[in-house]
Amino acid sequence: MRKGIFITFEGNDGSGKTTVSKQVYEALAKQGYDLLYTREPGGIEIAEQIRKVILNPENTAMDARTEALLYAASRRQHLVERILPALAEGRIVLCDRFVDSSLAYQGVGRGLGIDAVQRINDFAIEGCMPDATIFLSVPLAVGLARVTQRGNLDRLDQENYAFHERVASGYEQVTQCFAQRIHVIDASRSPKEVIQDALETCQRIITSIWK
Amino acid sequence: MRKGIFITFEGNDGSGKTTVSKQVYEALAKQGYDLLYTREPGGIEIAEQIRKVILNPENTAMDARTEALLYAASRRQHLVERILPALAEGRIVLCDRFVDSSLAYQGVGRGLGIDAVQRINDFAIEGCMPDATIFLSVPLAVGLARVTQRGNLDRLDQENYAFHERVASGYEQVTQCFAQRIHVIDASRSPKEVIQDALETCQRIITSIWK
Repeated sequence: MRKGIFITFEGNDGSGKTTVSKQVYEALAKQGYDLLYTREPGGIEIAEQIRKVILNPENTAMDARTEALLYAASRRQHLVERILPALAEGRIVLCDRFVDSSLAYQGVGRGLGIDAVQRINDFAIEGCMPDATIFLSVPLAVGLARVTQRGNLDRLDQENYAFHERVASGYEQVTQCFAQRIHVIDASRSPKEVIQDALETCQRIITSIWK
Repeated sequence: MRKGIFITFEGNDGSGKTTVSKQVYEALAKQGYDLLYTREPGGIEIAEQIRKVILNPENTAMDARTEALLYAASRRQHLVERILPALAEGRIVLCDRFVDSSLAYQGVGRGLGIDAVQRINDFAIEGCMPDATIFLSVPLAVGLARVTQRGNLDRLDQENYAFHERVASGYEQVTQCFAQRIHVIDASRSPKEVIQDALETCQRIITSIWK
């Protein structure tokens, strides 16, 4: 059987990541590809329980390392129960956020260091890195304005501006470190243009792997 | 101020660890030492929430790496909120189970490897290893018989005999790896003898650090 393909979508809050990835999923599905669209915790019972602990607005005493370990734990369970079985069946998996989010948010945003956060995630994913990653790049102020409009802020959304600046800088470092895997897309353009660009990039990735 | 002292108690299920450590605590308290007695998750709200996820008997799909990451997360939060403040105040901390439990249970019992589990715990504890550890050594069959008598088995207690054999072998490896830190006490003797031995060992540890 043809090997599965694992593509992740990353970006700062408000980069349009979720909208874009869903539209790309629908376009590829229409073309007849067998796809799984997912995001952590994705209805996986154990991952959902862990995510509740992370995002509980009352857990203000949560240490940054606790948070990083919980994300890695939630990621592990979602990977094992949802992503790996789909890849084993030769499907294309599109996942909204994965390891790079932890490198940017916990590694740089929380100041734990990209290397340290990568190490605990290596333990969690056992080498199952994405084949490719779509990074939606948008100026920080634009992204945050979109998030604020949405309302219903969780514990992470409520962080201050300096935190989000560090996350943005974290993503910059991560996209430079993994330039071969991560495809940067200018997400400050119109939704239509961004979706088209992301879709074409995914098509090129799929063709290059299944050539 | 005098530096705090961090002593942990370890042992297979049914080794008498909890009873012995509590008795040692009471005896040392009577001698006038300023002590904190604790065990993960220890009433720390976030650590309690994490522990509920780990021990929920319905979470049978939990992957071994997820479990190891959750223990490390719970450990981190308990360390930061309870142990480190007490050590900073120059107190003696007695803790029922710590990193060695994960090395034995997840590292060897679950087959993840001592090194891999040590690495995620290094991230969690940032070098705050115990000054000394009391290991209560008891034949596997004796320990398991005691646990069965207790009733109310949680998800880990319900594991099969082969698992508990691997854990026992894990503790053997750990006590050999860290022979200088870990003091092995024969816990197959009468409770009175075991408590006396553990107490005298703790007194020697305290005297050697606060000499």
